[in-house]
Amino acid sequence: MALETERKFLVKGDFKQYAYAHEEIVQGYLSSVTERTVRIRIKGDKAYITIKGAGDESGMSRYEWEKEIPGEEARELMKLCEPGIIDKVRYYIENGDRKFEVDEFHGENEGLIMAEIELADKEEEFDRPDWLGTEVTGDSRYYNSSLVKYPYREWKNE
Amino acid sequence: MALETERKFLVKGDFKQYAYAHEEIVQGYLSSVTERTVRIRIKGDKAYITIKGAGDESGMSRYEWEKEIPGEEARELMKLCEPGIIDKVRYYIENGDRKFEVDEFHGENEGLIMAEIELADKEEEFDRPDWLGTEVTGDSRYYNSSLVKYPYREWKNE
Repeated sequence: MALETERKFLVKGDFKQYAYAHEEIVQGYLSSVTERTVRIRIKGDKAYITIKGAGDESGMSRYEWEKEIPGEEARELMKLCEPGIIDKVRYYIENGDRKFEVDEFHGENEGLIMAEIELADKEEEFDRPDWLGTEVTGDSRYYNSSLVKYPYREWKNE
Repeated sequence: MALETERKFLVKGDFKQYAYAHEEIVQGYLSSVTERTVRIRIKGDKAYITIKGAGDESGMSRYEWEKEIPGEEARELMKLCEPGIIDKVRYYIENGDRKFEVDEFHGENEGLIMAEIELADKEEEFDRPDWLGTEVTGDSRYYNSSLVKYPYREWKNE
Protein backbone atom coordinates (compact mmCIF):
# COMPACT_ATOMS: atom_id res chain seq x y z
CA MET A 1 0.00 0.00 0.00
CA ALA A 2 1.56 3.26 -1.16
CA LEU A 3 1.05 6.81 0.06
CA GLU A 4 0.32 8.89 -3.01
CA THR A 5 0.84 12.66 -3.14
CA GLU A 6 -1.28 14.36 -5.77
CA ARG A 7 -2.32 17.92 -6.57
CA LYS A 8 -5.46 18.65 -8.50
CA PHE A 9 -6.45 21.66 -10.63
CA LEU A 10 -9.29 22.84 -12.78
CA VAL A 11 -8.43 23.39 -16.45
CA LYS A 12 -9.11 26.78 -18.02
CA GLY A 13 -7.65 26.63 -21.53
CA ASP A 14 -6.92 24.36 -24.45
CA PHE A 15 -4.80 21.44 -23.29
CA LYS A 16 -5.53 18.74 -25.87
CA GLN A 17 -2.84 19.89 -28.30
CA TYR A 18 -0.20 19.01 -25.65
CA ALA A 19 -1.44 15.48 -24.99
CA TYR A 20 0.72 12.58 -26.18
CA ALA A 21 -2.00 9.98 -25.51
CA HIS A 22 -5.53 9.56 -24.25
CA GLU A 23 -7.88 6.74 -23.24
CA GLU A 24 -11.42 6.20 -22.02
CA ILE A 25 -12.04 5.46 -18.35
CA VAL A 26 -15.26 4.05 -16.93
CA GLN A 27 -15.45 3.59 -13.18
CA GLY A 28 -17.90 2.83 -10.42
CA TYR A 29 -17.75 2.63 -6.63
CA LEU A 30 -18.54 -0.25 -4.30
CA SER A 31 -17.90 2.25 -1.51
CA SER A 32 -17.81 6.00 -2.06
CA VAL A 33 -17.27 6.76 1.62
CA THR A 34 -14.21 9.06 1.74
CA GLU A 35 -12.53 7.07 4.54
CA ARG A 36 -12.58 3.87 2.45
CA THR A 37 -13.39 4.17 -1.23
CA VAL A 38 -13.51 0.95 -3.28
CA ARG A 39 -13.35 1.64 -7.00
CA ILE A 40 -13.78 -0.62 -10.03
CA ARG A 41 -12.12 0.95 -13.09
CA ILE A 42 -11.94 -0.08 -16.74
CA LYS A 43 -9.16 1.93 -18.42
CA GLY A 44 -8.49 1.20 -22.08
CA ASP A 45 -8.20 -2.60 -22.25
CA LYS A 46 -7.21 -3.05 -18.60
CA ALA A 47 -9.23 -3.16 -15.40
CA TYR A 48 -8.46 -2.53 -11.73
CA ILE A 49 -9.84 -2.62 -8.23
CA THR A 50 -8.52 0.27 -6.13
CA ILE A 51 -8.98 1.02 -2.44
CA LYS A 52 -8.15 4.42 -0.97
CA GLY A 53 -8.14 5.64 2.61
CA ALA A 54 -8.98 9.10 3.91
CA GLY A 55 -6.80 11.99 2.83
CA ASP A 56 -4.51 13.73 5.30
CA GLU A 57 -5.22 17.31 6.44
CA SER A 58 -3.79 18.88 3.27
CA GLY A 59 -5.85 16.55 1.08
CA MET A 60 -2.70 15.80 -0.94
CA SER A 61 -1.89 12.32 0.33
CA ARG A 62 -4.05 9.20 0.56
CA TYR A 63 -3.22 5.55 1.09
CA GLU A 64 -3.85 3.56 -2.05
CA TRP A 65 -4.03 -0.17 -2.80
CA GLU A 66 -4.58 -1.39 -6.35
CA LYS A 67 -4.78 -4.73 -8.19
CA GLU A 68 -5.29 -5.43 -11.87
CA ILE A 69 -8.27 -7.72 -12.49
CA PRO A 70 -9.68 -9.35 -15.66
CA GLY A 71 -11.98 -7.04 -17.67
CA GLU A 72 -14.80 -9.58 -17.57
CA GLU A 73 -14.76 -9.57 -13.74
CA ALA A 74 -14.64 -5.76 -13.69
CA ARG A 75 -17.74 -5.60 -15.87
CA GLU A 76 -19.58 -7.97 -13.50
CA LEU A 77 -18.46 -6.00 -10.43
CA MET A 78 -19.47 -2.73 -12.11
CA LYS A 79 -23.08 -4.01 -11.99
CA LEU A 80 -22.87 -4.15 -8.19
CA CYS A 81 -21.57 -0.57 -7.89
CA GLU A 82 -23.50 2.35 -6.46
CA PRO A 83 -25.67 4.21 -8.98
CA GLY A 84 -23.72 6.91 -10.88
CA ILE A 85 -20.98 5.46 -13.05
CA ILE A 86 -18.18 7.92 -14.00
CA ASP A 87 -17.34 8.17 -17.70
CA LYS A 88 -14.35 10.28 -18.76
CA VAL A 89 -11.46 10.56 -21.21
CA ARG A 90 -7.99 10.90 -19.70
CA TYR A 91 -5.31 12.86 -21.57
CA TYR A 92 -1.62 12.45 -20.73
CA ILE A 93 0.61 15.55 -20.94
CA GLU A 94 4.33 15.70 -20.22
CA ASN A 95 5.45 18.43 -17.83
CA GLY A 96 9.20 18.38 -17.21
CA ASP A 97 10.04 15.19 -15.33
CA ARG A 98 6.41 14.79 -14.32
CA LYS A 99 3.19 14.31 -16.24
CA PHE A 100 -0.30 15.71 -15.98
CA GLU A 101 -3.34 13.49 -16.27
CA VAL A 102 -6.24 15.59 -17.49
CA ASP A 103 -9.73 14.12 -17.12
CA GLU A 104 -12.52 15.39 -19.36
CA PHE A 105 -15.78 14.16 -17.86
CA HIS A 106 -18.88 13.10 -19.75
CA GLY A 107 -22.43 12.10 -18.82
CA GLU A 108 -23.65 13.65 -15.59
CA ASN A 109 -20.30 15.41 -15.10
CA GLU A 110 -20.11 16.94 -18.58
CA GLY A 111 -18.31 20.28 -18.52
CA LEU A 112 -15.85 19.34 -15.78
CA ILE A 113 -12.16 19.10 -16.73
CA MET A 114 -9.55 18.39 -14.05
CA ALA A 115 -5.78 18.00 -14.14
CA GLU A 116 -3.80 15.95 -11.65
CA ILE A 117 -0.06 15.73 -11.07
CA GLU A 118 1.64 13.10 -8.90
CA LEU A 119 4.58 14.38 -6.86
CA ALA A 120 7.25 12.85 -4.64
CA ASP A 121 6.08 14.95 -1.69
CA LYS A 122 4.06 18.03 -0.82
CA GLU A 123 6.98 20.43 -1.20
CA GLU A 124 8.01 19.46 -4.72
CA GLU A 125 7.95 22.36 -7.21
CA PHE A 126 6.65 21.98 -10.77
CA ASP A 127 6.00 24.13 -13.88
CA ARG A 128 2.47 25.46 -14.25
CA PRO A 129 1.29 25.48 -17.87
CA ASP A 130 -1.04 28.26 -19.16
CA TRP A 131 -4.08 26.00 -19.27
CA LEU A 132 -3.84 25.15 -15.56
CA GLY A 133 -6.57 26.83 -13.49
CA THR A 134 -7.55 26.99 -9.83
CA GLU A 135 -6.15 24.38 -7.46
CA VAL A 136 -8.84 22.13 -5.96
CA THR A 137 -6.61 19.71 -4.05
CA GLY A 138 -8.41 18.46 -0.95
CA ASP A 139 -11.80 19.84 -1.99
CA SER A 140 -13.86 16.69 -1.56
CA ARG A 141 -16.56 17.85 -4.01
CA TYR A 142 -14.06 17.12 -6.77
CA TYR A 143 -13.30 13.58 -5.64
CA ASN A 144 -14.58 11.15 -8.25
CA SER A 145 -16.28 9.31 -5.39
CA SER A 146 -18.23 12.51 -4.63
CA LEU A 147 -19.04 13.17 -8.30
CA VAL A 148 -20.90 9.85 -8.32
CA LYS A 149 -23.35 11.21 -5.75
CA TYR A 150 -23.33 14.94 -6.60
CA PRO A 151 -22.45 15.18 -10.28
CA TYR A 152 -21.10 18.44 -11.73
CA ARG A 153 -24.23 19.12 -13.78
CA GLU A 154 -26.21 19.58 -10.57
CA TRP A 155 -23.75 22.16 -9.22
CA LYS A 156 -24.80 24.72 -11.81
CA ASN A 157 -28.16 25.03 -10.09
CA GLU A 158 -26.54 26.11 -6.84
CA MET B 1 -18.02 -14.32 -10.23
CA ALA B 2 -19.92 -17.32 -8.91
CA LEU B 3 -23.44 -17.62 -7.56
CA GLU B 4 -23.16 -19.30 -4.18
CA THR B 5 -26.04 -21.16 -2.54
CA GLU B 6 -25.73 -21.40 1.22
CA ARG B 7 -28.02 -22.26 4.11
CA LYS B 8 -27.35 -21.00 7.59
CA PHE B 9 -28.37 -22.36 11.01
CA LEU B 10 -27.93 -21.61 14.67
CA VAL B 11 -26.11 -24.30 16.66
CA LYS B 12 -27.80 -25.79 19.72
CA GLY B 13 -25.54 -28.60 20.90
CA ASP B 14 -21.98 -29.81 21.13
CA PHE B 15 -20.45 -29.85 17.67
CA LYS B 16 -16.71 -29.58 18.34
CA GLN B 17 -16.19 -33.31 18.76
CA TYR B 18 -17.19 -33.78 15.08
CA ALA B 19 -14.79 -31.17 13.68
CA TYR B 20 -11.82 -32.41 11.65
CA ALA B 21 -10.12 -28.99 11.61
CA HIS B 22 -10.47 -25.40 12.79
CA GLU B 23 -8.82 -22.05 12.21
CA GLU B 24 -9.08 -18.45 13.36
CA ILE B 25 -10.74 -15.87 11.12
CA VAL B 26 -10.44 -12.11 11.53
CA GLN B 27 -12.37 -9.95 9.11
CA GLY B 28 -13.42 -6.36 8.53
CA TYR B 29 -15.60 -4.55 6.03
CA LEU B 30 -14.74 -1.72 3.66
CA SER B 31 -18.44 -1.75 2.79
CA SER B 32 -21.05 -3.47 4.93
CA VAL B 33 -23.93 -2.34 2.69
CA THR B 34 -25.88 -5.53 1.89
CA GLU B 35 -26.06 -4.76 -1.85
CA ARG B 36 -22.26 -4.59 -2.12
CA THR B 37 -20.23 -5.88 0.79
CA VAL B 38 -16.43 -5.63 0.52
CA ARG B 39 -14.69 -7.84 3.05
CA ILE B 40 -11.03 -8.18 4.07
CA ARG B 41 -10.43 -11.57 5.69
CA ILE B 42 -7.39 -13.15 7.32
CA LYS B 43 -7.98 -16.91 7.63
CA GLY B 44 -5.17 -18.99 9.11
CA ASP B 45 -2.08 -17.92 7.15
CA LYS B 46 -4.00 -16.73 4.08
CA ALA B 47 -5.84 -13.51 3.30
CA TYR B 48 -8.61 -12.54 0.88
CA ILE B 49 -10.65 -9.68 -0.47
CA THR B 50 -14.25 -10.73 -1.12
CA ILE B 51 -17.10 -8.81 -2.73
CA LYS B 52 -20.71 -9.99 -2.47
CA GLY B 53 -23.87 -8.65 -4.06
CA ALA B 54 -27.37 -8.62 -2.63
CA GLY B 55 -29.04 -11.93 -1.88
CA ASP B 56 -31.97 -13.14 -3.93
CA GLU B 57 -35.48 -13.34 -2.41
CA SER B 58 -34.80 -16.61 -0.57
CA GLY B 59 -31.57 -15.22 0.88
CA MET B 60 -29.81 -18.42 -0.18
CA SER B 61 -27.86 -17.14 -3.19
CA ARG B 62 -25.50 -14.19 -3.54
CA TYR B 63 -22.98 -13.25 -6.20
CA GLU B 64 -19.45 -13.59 -4.88
CA TRP B 65 -16.05 -12.46 -6.15
CA GLU B 66 -12.90 -13.35 -4.23
CA LYS B 67 -9.14 -12.90 -4.65
CA GLU B 68 -6.31 -14.04 -2.42
CA ILE B 69 -4.04 -11.17 -1.35
CA PRO B 70 -0.80 -11.03 0.66
CA GLY B 71 -1.31 -11.07 4.45
CA GLU B 72 0.67 -7.88 4.85
CA GLU B 73 -1.67 -6.00 2.49
CA ALA B 74 -4.71 -7.44 4.27
CA ARG B 75 -3.41 -6.15 7.59
CA GLU B 76 -2.97 -2.65 6.08
CA LEU B 77 -6.44 -2.74 4.51
CA MET B 78 -7.96 -3.95 7.78
CA LYS B 79 -6.94 -0.59 9.28
CA LEU B 80 -9.18 1.18 6.76
CA CYS B 81 -12.21 -0.99 7.56
CA GLU B 82 -15.35 0.18 9.31
CA PRO B 83 -15.21 -0.04 13.11
CA GLY B 84 -16.22 -3.49 14.43
CA ILE B 85 -13.80 -6.20 13.36
CA ILE B 86 -15.21 -9.76 13.44
CA ASP B 87 -13.16 -12.36 15.31
CA LYS B 88 -14.23 -16.00 15.19
CA VAL B 89 -13.01 -19.60 15.05
CA ARG B 90 -14.28 -21.72 12.16
CA TYR B 91 -14.74 -25.47 12.64
CA TYR B 92 -15.02 -27.82 9.66
CA ILE B 93 -17.37 -30.80 9.97
CA GLU B 94 -18.02 -33.44 7.31
CA ASN B 95 -21.67 -34.14 6.53
CA GLY B 96 -22.07 -36.79 3.82
CA ASP B 97 -20.75 -35.35 0.55
CA ARG B 98 -20.97 -31.84 1.98
CA LYS B 99 -19.36 -30.09 4.88
CA PHE B 100 -20.53 -27.69 7.56
CA GLU B 101 -18.54 -24.63 8.50
CA VAL B 102 -19.39 -23.70 12.08
CA ASP B 103 -18.37 -20.24 13.25
CA GLU B 104 -17.93 -19.60 16.96
CA PHE B 105 -17.81 -15.85 17.44
CA HIS B 106 -15.74 -13.94 19.99
CA GLY B 107 -15.44 -10.32 21.07
CA GLU B 108 -18.62 -8.31 20.61
CA ASN B 109 -20.40 -11.36 19.16
CA GLU B 110 -19.44 -13.79 21.93
CA GLY B 111 -22.16 -16.40 22.43
CA LEU B 112 -23.17 -16.63 18.79
CA ILE B 113 -22.48 -19.93 16.98
CA MET B 114 -23.64 -20.41 13.40
CA ALA B 115 -23.34 -23.30 10.94
CA GLU B 116 -23.31 -22.88 7.17
CA ILE B 117 -23.58 -25.47 4.41
CA GLU B 118 -22.89 -24.77 0.75
CA LEU B 119 -25.22 -26.56 -1.68
CA ALA B 120 -25.44 -27.02 -5.43
CA ASP B 121 -28.86 -25.40 -5.48
CA LYS B 122 -31.80 -24.48 -3.27
CA GLU B 123 -33.52 -27.86 -3.63
CA GLU B 124 -30.61 -30.06 -2.57
CA GLU B 125 -31.38 -32.29 0.44
CA PHE B 126 -28.85 -32.87 3.24
CA ASP B 127 -28.62 -34.68 6.60
CA ARG B 128 -29.33 -32.56 9.68
CA PRO B 129 -27.11 -33.45 12.62
CA ASP B 130 -28.45 -33.24 16.21
CA TRP B 131 -26.54 -30.08 17.03
CA LEU B 132 -28.15 -28.13 14.17
CA GLY B 133 -30.67 -25.55 15.40
CA THR B 134 -33.06 -23.03 13.84
CA GLU B 135 -32.49 -22.03 10.24
CA VAL B 136 -31.58 -18.34 9.85
CA THR B 137 -30.87 -18.28 6.10
CA GLY B 138 -31.76 -14.88 4.66
CA ASP B 139 -32.13 -13.21 8.07
CA SER B 140 -29.88 -10.22 7.50
CA ARG B 141 -29.23 -9.71 11.25
CA TYR B 142 -27.01 -12.79 11.06
CA TYR B 143 -24.93 -11.54 8.13
CA ASN B 144 -21.38 -10.94 9.32
CA SER B 145 -21.65 -7.51 7.68
CA SER B 146 -24.60 -6.76 10.00
CA LEU B 147 -22.85 -8.18 13.07
CA VAL B 148 -20.19 -5.51 12.57
CA LYS B 149 -22.78 -2.80 13.19
CA TYR B 150 -25.19 -4.59 15.55
CA PRO B 151 -23.14 -7.21 17.39
CA TYR B 152 -24.82 -10.17 19.05
CA ARG B 153 -24.03 -8.95 22.58
CA GLU B 154 -26.32 -5.97 22.07
CA TRP B 155 -29.24 -8.17 21.00
CA LYS B 156 -29.66 -9.54 24.52
CA ASN B 157 -30.91 -6.16 25.67
CA GLU B 158 -33.80 -6.22 23.23
